[in-house]
Formats: sequence, C-alpha cells, structure tokens
Amino acid sequence: MSDALAQQITSLAERARAASLTLATVSTADKNAALERLADLLSQNIDDLLEANAKDLADAETNGQTPAQIDRLTLTDSRMDKLAASVRQVAELPDPVGELIEETTRPNGLVLQRVRVPIGVIGIVYESRPNVTIDCAVLCLKSGNAAILRGGKECFHTNTALAALITQALSDSGLPADAVQLIPTTDRVALNTLLKLDTLVHCIIPRGGESLIRFVAQNSTIPVIKHYQGVCFVYADRAADLTMAENIIVNAKTSRPGVCNAAEQLLVHRDIAGTFLPEAGRALKSKHVELRCDAASAAILAAADIPHVAAIEKDYTAEFLAPILAIRIVDDLDAAITTINRDSSGHSETIITGDDAAAKKFQLSVDSAAVLWNASTRFNDGFEFGLGAEIGISTDRLHARGPMGLRELCSYKWLVMGTGQVRD
Amino acid sequence: MSDALAQQITSLAERARAASLTLATVSTADKNAALERLADLLSQNIDDLLEANAKDLADAETNGQTPAQIDRLTLTDSRMDKLAASVRQVAELPDPVGELIEETTRPNGLVLQRVRVPIGVIGIVYESRPNVTIDCAVLCLKSGNAAILRGGKECFHTNTALAALITQALSDSGLPADAVQLIPTTDRVALNTLLKLDTLVHCIIPRGGESLIRFVAQNSTIPVIKHYQGVCFVYADRAADLTMAENIIVNAKTSRPGVCNAAEQLLVHRDIAGTFLPEAGRALKSKHVELRCDAASAAILAAADIPHVAAIEKDYTAEFLAPILAIRIVDDLDAAITTINRDSSGHSETIITGDDAAAKKFQLSVDSAAVLWNASTRFNDGFEFGLGAEIGISTDRLHARGPMGLRELCSYKWLVMGTGQVRD
Repeated sequence: MSDALAQQITSLAERARAASLTLATVSTADKNAALERLADLLSQNIDDLLEANAKDLADAETNGQTPAQIDRLTLTDSRMDKLAASVRQVAELPDPVGELIEETTRPNGLVLQRVRVPIGVIGIVYESRPNVTIDCAVLCLKSGNAAILRGGKECFHTNTALAALITQALSDSGLPADAVQLIPTTDRVALNTLLKLDTLVHCIIPRGGESLIRFVAQNSTIPVIKHYQGVCFVYADRAADLTMAENIIVNAKTSRPGVCNAAEQLLVHRDIAGTFLPEAGRALKSKHVELRCDAASAAILAAADIPHVAAIEKDYTAEFLAPILAIRIVDDLDAAITTINRDSSGHSETIITGDDAAAKKFQLSVDSAAVLWNASTRFNDGFEFGLGAEIGISTDRLHARGPMGLRELCSYKWLVMGTGQVRD
Repeated sequence: MSDALAQQITSLAERARAASLTLATVSTADKNAALERLADLLSQNIDDLLEANAKDLADAETNGQTPAQIDRLTLTDSRMDKLAASVRQVAELPDPVGELIEETTRPNGLVLQRVRVPIGVIGIVYESRPNVTIDCAVLCLKSGNAAILRGGKECFHTNTALAALITQALSDSGLPADAVQLIPTTDRVALNTLLKLDTLVHCIIPRGGESLIRFVAQNSTIPVIKHYQGVCFVYADRAADLTMAENIIVNAKTSRPGVCNAAEQLLVHRDIAGTFLPEAGRALKSKHVELRCDAASAAILAAADIPHVAAIEKDYTAEFLAPILAIRIVDDLDAAITTINRDSSGHSETIITGDDAAAKKFQLSVDSAAVLWNASTRFNDGFEFGLGAEIGISTDRLHARGPMGLRELCSYKWLVMGTGQVRD
C-alpha cells in the first residue's frame, strides 16, 4: 500500500518535471491565456465549488474546528469573485522569465548573459485556506514553474475541485496539464515521499504553522524556502517623534495582529520612556492590547495608572499573533540592536527616530529581512513592496529574503555566445 | 564524550554567529587589511606549514593513498607563493557588501532599497587540498561572512596550522578571531552536530566527492548549496563548422579531464556524422581519449579504422573525470535537447552550429547552469566568467547557479525609509 503510494507520487513528480521543461519555453501570451481561462472557469463553476466546500465545512464542524478555522476554510460568492480577480491580476504582471539580468563581454570575445529562468518544479505544502491552492498555482504558472500542491486535509474536497479547474484551464489553453498537480491524498507517506524526490523537484515552499514548516525543513532533501514566524520589533529611539512613534506602534500592533509582520515587541529608549510610554500605553489600551512589561516600563505605566502585567522571559521572544505586546526599556541604541539581533526572528524591525546617524546604524546592524525607519513593520509585504504578488515572506537568507514575488520564484542560467573559443 | 563534543561544536557556532554580526558591519579597508596580513603570515611561516604538511604526507603514505591523492595534499614553496598571491587578489576585488541592488519609491512615499549583505555564518565541508582552507576563509571574510571550516582528516595537521595563521591575521587586524574557525576534529559526531545547527549557521557548502555531498545534503537541516558533478555535453549540430567543433570537443575533453566542466558526452547530428566523426575521432585518439560509442557512431569509426569500444547504458550518464568520451548520434536538434535534459547533470552544455535559430532554441530549451554556443564547456568557471574568484560551481537552482563568487556568497536585506507611514 505505502509502496504503491510512493510510486504514485514519484510518477506524479516525473510528469511534473517533464511538464516543467515545456513550460519553461512557453510564451507569456500562452501562459496569460491559461490564467484568463482559469479565472473564467472559477466564475463559471461557483456552484460546484461551493458544493465541494460544503463537504469540507461539514467535516470541520464534525471535527470541532474553531469558528476562526471554519471561517478561513469558507468559500463565498464574494470570496470567489476576489479569487478570480486575483488570477487576472497575475496575468497582467510582467513575465519574469527571459529577463536579462546582466550581460558582459569577456576579453576573449565571449558574450555572457545571465537570464532569468524558472526554477523548475516547486512543491508547495500548505494548510487550510483554499485560496492558497489558486494563488500558488497561478504564481508558479506565470513564472514558468511546474507546481506540486499538497494541501491540508481540512480543505481536501475544495482543493480537489479547484485543482480540476486548473487542469482544465491548462488543457483548454494547450499547456501541459501536468504543470499543476494536486497530491490526491493527505497521507503522510505521500508527503514524505515528495520531500525526498530531489532529482525531480527543485524547491519546497511550506506555508503554514510552525510545526508544519519544521517538519518539512527537517525531512526534506530538497532545498526549502521557509516562511517562518515574525517576532517583529518596534524601537522608539531617544530622538523619536513621539506622536509618530505612537502611531506606528499602534498600527504595527493592532491593524492586523494575526499576521507575521505585526509587531510583537516594543523597545523604548530610557530617556523618552517617561513621556512616551504613558501616551503610547493609553493608545494601545484603547485598542485592547495587553501590555507585558519589564520592571522599568511597568513602573512607568503603574505611575500613570495604565493596566499592564509583568512579562515572563519567553514573552520577549514570542510571536503572539494576538493583541498582546511585550515592552522593554533599553539604555541606548546599541542595546536595542543587540536585543533585536538576539531575540527577533529576523523578519521586520523598525526604528522611530529623527536622528539620521542612529537610523543608519540601526539599518546597517540589524540583521533582519526588512529594516525600516519611521514606518510600520506591516509594510513588509509583496504588494506593499511593489512586487505585484507574493507567495509568502521568506525568513531564510538564501535565494529570497522577505517578500517572494514572481522574480523570486525564478532561478537564472548563463548563456555564453562564442565564435569557437577554447580554453588554454 | 559525544555529548561534550556536540556541546563544543554548538559553542563554536555560537561564537561564529556573534562574530558574523560584527563582521557584517566591518569596513572594506579593515577586511582587506586582514587579508593582506594573512598573505604576509603565509609567506613568513612557510617552514612551519611545510612541517605540518610533512606529518599529513607521512600519514598519507602509511595509509596507502595514491600518488595523485598525495600530490593534491602536498604543499611546496611555489604552491605557498601562489596561495599568498591568491589571498592578495581577493583583497583587490570589489567588496559586495552594501551594494545597492535596486531602489524604488512607493506611491505612499516610502523609499525602498534592496542592499547586499553577508549571508551570516557559512559552514564549509571539504576534503583533501589544503588550499581550500585558505580559499574558503578569504572568500567568506571578504564577503563579510563568518566561516566554520570542516576539512578532511588527510589534511588535518596542515589545516590546523593554516587556521592558526588565519586566527592570528584576524586578531592582528582587530577583527573577531571567531570569524573563521576550523572544527578541531574530523569526528563524524562533530559534522552531524554542525549540520543540525540551523538557528546559528545559515548555509552549508560541501566541496568534494559525490558521497560527501550526498551525506551533507541528506543530513543537513541547514540550507545546502551543492557543487555536484558535471556530466557535460558537446552537441555538434548539422550546421556546425566542423573544424570549430573538433577544436571544441578536443579542448572540452582533454584540456583538464579531471574537472567538473570537462566534457564527458558528445552528441553528433546524423547529417554530419560521416564526415565529422572520423576527423574528430582521430584528433581525440591522438590525445589518448577512449571513445565509447553507440552503434551508429561505432560503425562510422570502424569504417575509418579508428579504435573505439561499445558504450554501455551507464556510460551515457557518466562523469568519467578521465580521458574517456561517450559518443551518440542524434536525429536532430530536438533529440539533442531531449537527450541532454534527460542525461546531463545540468552543469554545462554547448552547441556548435552556424545556425542562429538552432543555437537560440538550444539555449532556451537546455536546462543547465551554463548553455554555451560555439565555445568550450571549460569556460563555465568563476574566473573565466569574470567573477574574480569562486568558491565553487553550484549545480543547484536556488540562490546561486553556476560559478559562486563573492556576490553569490551574499544575501540581501530590504531597507525602508519612511516619514511616519502606517498601513491602512
């Protein structure tokens, strides 16, 4: 049984690899036609998709999933409209494949070009939300990559129905139907098999909770690009504009607490803490944020009668994904940098300051994917950065760091044009 | 015992991580001063280094290593001069750290910069040649990365002596001495511990034989950039200049048969095989190359009285690293492309043709790190590509493909400059 399943997954990956070689040479127009066709099919098959989704929702209730989990799983007419629109938006983005990255002529006359090409076959391992199936499929397709999708069991019926439409869109447009394939089971044997197929699959992108990402990173022999947690810091420097600092911490903490670029940690320079913290604390409390404080910040909030609790050690490295903020006071800029490089997850950190030299030192020394100055951490995002779309925000340092758009879903190759050159 | 060793390696990696944060902010002048100091120390300590090397050479003879293996291990006065000179050359290369890759201003006024930064801590796992210890240390140092070096047991005494000079050069120049550390044992427990330290070490580069690279790729939870084998193809197209094709296959096969960009496989278009193969065959035989042929090419060589043998299936995917060439005849360009994408290792392939359309199709469709046209595969090399130096030639598709120079030893980060922007 499990041997047969492993063989089935291997065969699926072999077909993906073959499709990837064709897809790498397909024109932008042909890829866009397939995307437009998919958008049409999504609109035309809403009833079937909602029916499949209803099965997943019934299972979810039986299995006692939380209302928040069920909401993430739910397709509606308006969500389907948005999904179709997002597919058309990707069709309108520039095609990264074939872009000339650099060109040089060597002293021996060889002309060298480094050109962007698809990575090849990308495996995406994800949980719950059905829109991820479409998002990942269209981003891989536009960037010329074959995709192997392994969704979660909560969403199995919906994913299967969506994958059938993707296959149809590919076939209708004359592209290889194997260019996007959903693994037709959520059996762990299938996932484990996939993660070892390093001669056929070139990259694995896990999207989901920490335990999923950890499992994939530890079991894959294929290179993995992790989209890990965001323990993001806001640092209010001595030279901060206090109103700006208050606006930014409130925005970074409360505009969407459940996402990876939300702030979880506030550091305040000792010299401004007495004036800044009461104001900022009141603003945060008006948004129902729990404040978990070190002794020094607790004393200031207590004197101002602002509710707070004492932080424990693990709060200082926590990704709360909730209306909770850990607060510490630091002696100076260097202490802020040291604290961040030790306790953050390297995702997004911001300094609020009017002091150019302090900002530059912070941006040079903080070792994170995005280091901001006088702006909310919430801007670390593919759309906000102008990439047009994103498959996630990489917390790795190789290949892609921060938002991964279409270009980051590409590799490159070297083209060398000669006139018979041989090497000495 | 092995717990103590694991703790020792973890502690070494923690020191490397701390050093990497300092090194990332060090000026180009300070890094270059350390490199110049190292070059001086290498020249001043030749006697001590040769003494350490003599111990490794004595062990090598006791252990019955081959003359070729012993030669690779051997330091001489002239090799030491070359090594010191190569260190000075790296000092003269431009510093990739801090380079502005792109800059944009968003509609909301945010200024975005993507700037090159070191990866962080790089682990390099390698075998035999002592020059690798110096090469890797200086390339990591120049690109602002801390390096953890794990050399082979054949070279342990020499590596230890070289590492002591690196440490001294760092200390003498005011850089963190922990920026380059040699793992002080070749015990596999130490290597296995290193490969799991994914919160401290950001990239592993294995350099060596296939079994070493496979071991590292399968056991590492840290991202690995593989420098794998080169099963490189030369394709003589119907429209090839036959003299050029002959020169290129002779150069690609015989100029240095033991390296990864040497040709192992020759494909010949059916229409030119009758005229090309006897000429090329004679030229290759004059260089003592064994020709392993398919039936069609064997018949042509037999008719021309040129010695050859019948190929077996595995010859067609073999990396011989020796004066052996597998030869096949193909029906057309498409067959050449299909054969290469199935049987090559994706390293370096070249087409010899006067037909621009055929060349362009070959370069578009062949899925390899370097795809050449009328040039020898031997040019796929960091120096030949103008990168100034290389730590190896990546056969992976993520982060770096083909030669890895100083830029490819870097990541990037996003700097965002605002005036108080918050997100809607």
